[in-house]
Amino acid sequence: MIRLCIAGTSGHYESVLETIDANPGRYELVGFIPSDASVDAVEHERLFGILPHFENYEEMLNEASPDIVVVCSYNHLHAEMAIKALERDINVYCEKPLTINLEDYYALEAAYKASKAKVGAMLECRFSPDFYSAYTAVKNGAVGKVRMLDARKSYKLGTRPWHYHKRKTYGSTICWVGIHLIDLLYWISGERFTDVFARHSALDNFRHGELESTATASFSMTGGVLASMTCDYYRPGGAPTHGDDRIRIVGTQGIIEVMNDKCTLIDLNGQRDLPCTSPHNCFEDFVRLTQNEPDIILSSEDSLYATKVALQVCSSADTESLVRF
Amino acid sequence: MIRLCIAGTSGHYESVLETIDANPGRYELVGFIPSDASVDAVEHERLFGILPHFENYEEMLNEASPDIVVVCSYNHLHAEMAIKALERDINVYCEKPLTINLEDYYALEAAYKASKAKVGAMLECRFSPDFYSAYTAVKNGAVGKVRMLDARKSYKLGTRPWHYHKRKTYGSTICWVGIHLIDLLYWISGERFTDVFARHSALDNFRHGELESTATASFSMTGGVLASMTCDYYRPGGAPTHGDDRIRIVGTQGIIEVMNDKCTLIDLNGQRDLPCTSPHNCFEDFVRLTQNEPDIILSSEDSLYATKVALQVCSSADTESLVRF
Repeated sequence: MIRLCIAGTSGHYESVLETIDANPGRYELVGFIPSDASVDAVEHERLFGILPHFENYEEMLNEASPDIVVVCSYNHLHAEMAIKALERDINVYCEKPLTINLEDYYALEAAYKASKAKVGAMLECRFSPDFYSAYTAVKNGAVGKVRMLDARKSYKLGTRPWHYHKRKTYGSTICWVGIHLIDLLYWISGERFTDVFARHSALDNFRHGELESTATASFSMTGGVLASMTCDYYRPGGAPTHGDDRIRIVGTQGIIEVMNDKCTLIDLNGQRDLPCTSPHNCFEDFVRLTQNEPDIILSSEDSLYATKVALQVCSSADTESLVRF
Repeated sequence: MIRLCIAGTSGHYESVLETIDANPGRYELVGFIPSDASVDAVEHERLFGILPHFENYEEMLNEASPDIVVVCSYNHLHAEMAIKALERDINVYCEKPLTINLEDYYALEAAYKASKAKVGAMLECRFSPDFYSAYTAVKNGAVGKVRMLDARKSYKLGTRPWHYHKRKTYGSTICWVGIHLIDLLYWISGERFTDVFARHSALDNFRHGELESTATASFSMTGGVLASMTCDYYRPGGAPTHGDDRIRIVGTQGIIEVMNDKCTLIDLNGQRDLPCTSPHNCFEDFVRLTQNEPDIILSSEDSLYATKVALQVCSSADTESLVRF
């Protein structure tokens, strides 16, 4: 049995619950602590069943002694919580961004290097069948040599809770939304970022304080690859889905585009949709990582890299200047 | 009868021929000069019928005395040819880019200001029913306040003739392809560019010399609007059309996207295709401009603006630095 603690319910813990439900007898929930007091006991039990509740995060780590702690708290608390787990050699599966400032990032990176445990960010887009199929096809040479990529996320804004309204609790739209695109650009291209020029704007955000409603970034990557991304919170209420997630990969022999949950290849032979599958979800991948199993999709180093790049992209947007990696 | 001369057949003169054919008795072709000697007399006659041929451009302007000269020569010759027409108060309908360097641009702008004649660039995308419908819908408030735009052109490369291979004859992919996107971003948003960070790369261009196979640009515009564009020559041979032309306009109340010749709006009421129509083509618009008719779509000032911005975007890409307008 793999012993799990869950700390907070502000993020994407759904894949954890799905994995527990799909693998009876494999996981044991040994502790829970809410993000804040507003989540009542009835809601806890609905989500997780009856399990030991703790009032204090460190006490939970010490007493429940989990194999993995799932951190789904507020963005500004992730780094400290992740570091406390790593210091105890407890694996930490953490909502992205792992940190919302570079100072915390370097502390987290040091804690990871000093620990026997793994850290994984909830970069779930990699595990979405459309993006995973794009990755696989590119890796297998479907587009030839990758030359240019562009990626997009457009979300419905709705009414977001307090912690989205302030940079010091939310981080930024680049760190919260853009990080997925940063990770996809990196992962699918197989290249590393060399510099970025980014922008963002919190105008017309429907009373969401400092939350940026738009963001763009222009990257150069190793190998002379160009990349760009856009994020926005303007997906209309009448749109058929919450998010419009896309990537387009332009290569010397073909172009792949992910759009509307489909992955389409155009090459010399014409245009066609590729079959979309993914071997396992993000949480399962992290469990496999902690058990040193083969064919890991997202390493700790990748989780840290996407986090650091996102912070640097945000810094470029804040200063409207080129940031070199 | 409107007296026309045609100088060169390297560019998009098709809309001129279409307009002549569609309006019998309205236009008279009074002179022709080829871009170079490789275009033989048989090909001339196939294209234009029997008409007076000249060996020298200035001689043609002086002797044929046209109302409009259509300049479709090589990119590096446009500015000088346009200036010679403007100096004679002859209206000049010219393949874009009007010039391929800023020095020529300023000479052209001065010639335009000193002339009684008009200058128009072949910025034909404005007249494509899909883009024109996007423009009309945005102008009528379909997306609310425009917040972000991104535009794309992806072309089949094929085998391009010699003048595409050198910066000093071709200009650049940003000036040749990107100028359309620059013009669309400006025209549809109703905003002006404030700065740009651009990139381009001539790697892996299938033996096309200095021709850039990819280009990206990140713009800020007045009103806090963000814009971006990508261009490439990697559209595969098997693609159903020569070009993949797109724009996406993100506003506070809706999102419009032009793709696959369709114009789609998403707003609170859901997602639907808008009817696509355009009142007249690019050449007809220019003729109307020279006759001071109302409801002109592309002014001389707009043609000059798109040209100047494209040159500055190219300069940003060359220097990999921010250029302020």
